[in-house]
Amino acid sequence: MDKFMQAAIDEARAGLSEGGIPIGSVLVCDGRIIGRGHNQRVQKMSAVLHAEMDCLENAGRLSAVEYKKCTLYTTLSPCDMCSGTALLYGIPKVVIGENETFKGPEDYLRSRGVELLLLDSEECKALMREFIRAKPELWNEDIGA
Amino acid sequence: MDKFMQAAIDEARAGLSEGGIPIGSVLVCDGRIIGRGHNQRVQKMSAVLHAEMDCLENAGRLSAVEYKKCTLYTTLSPCDMCSGTALLYGIPKVVIGENETFKGPEDYLRSRGVELLLLDSEECKALMREFIRAKPELWNEDIGA
Repeated sequence: MDKFMQAAIDEARAGLSEGGIPIGSVLVCDGRIIGRGHNQRVQKMSAVLHAEMDCLENAGRLSAVEYKKCTLYTTLSPCDMCSGTALLYGIPKVVIGENETFKGPEDYLRSRGVELLLLDSEECKALMREFIRAKPELWNEDIGA
Repeated sequence: MDKFMQAAIDEARAGLSEGGIPIGSVLVCDGRIIGRGHNQRVQKMSAVLHAEMDCLENAGRLSAVEYKKCTLYTTLSPCDMCSGTALLYGIPKVVIGENETFKGPEDYLRSRGVELLLLDSEECKALMREFIRAKPELWNEDIGA
């Protein structure tokens, strides 16, 4: 497994151990992780801190020059909100653990010039499968369903 | 002025008085304001709390049924991030103070079924004009420029 996706999975597992939704994310710049995060819906009662958002928030306020050198890793295909955030900051590449559980607007991201790499990780899928079986209502809330 | 847009402008002015970026937002459901917020880049050192995001975060965790009855008011045309968040939660209508200072992906929102209403408010424009003249670098950071 890609070491950065492994770090995102570690974040997802940290979220699960806190009673949260097991989706994790890391932001990588110049070969180094500069932000880490995981979904905070349960932990912070948050409507906006999906894993990617928590990761970007934890990375702090960066310049446009910095964002444009970044790759965003996420264990699950980014939703409309998280995709939009990548577009806002001009993050050029997103690496996705899996998109079977949920698939965000990947074609739209590509049409706006974002490079996507799908790893199709069985570990990421298993995390979500077990979580959704246990707490389907929480998962639906997270994706506005 | 529409009373809900006035409440969003009040939020923008509150942000300005805190040294922040003067963009405000309210979330309205069944004729009642259920969330208020303003840009928190300066105040909370936040990369993700644009006014609309702060408003939705302050509204708390809502059900899909609730979001689908909401109208999101914002003093400035929503960026890719905030537009994506409206899409995630299926918010059916966005009322925009102005879109001269900045124009987000309005056509894309419409193409995804969101109704937009532009108020073309001189008060909203003046707030941003004065702010950007005073602190252009902060504004650029906020829109990833």
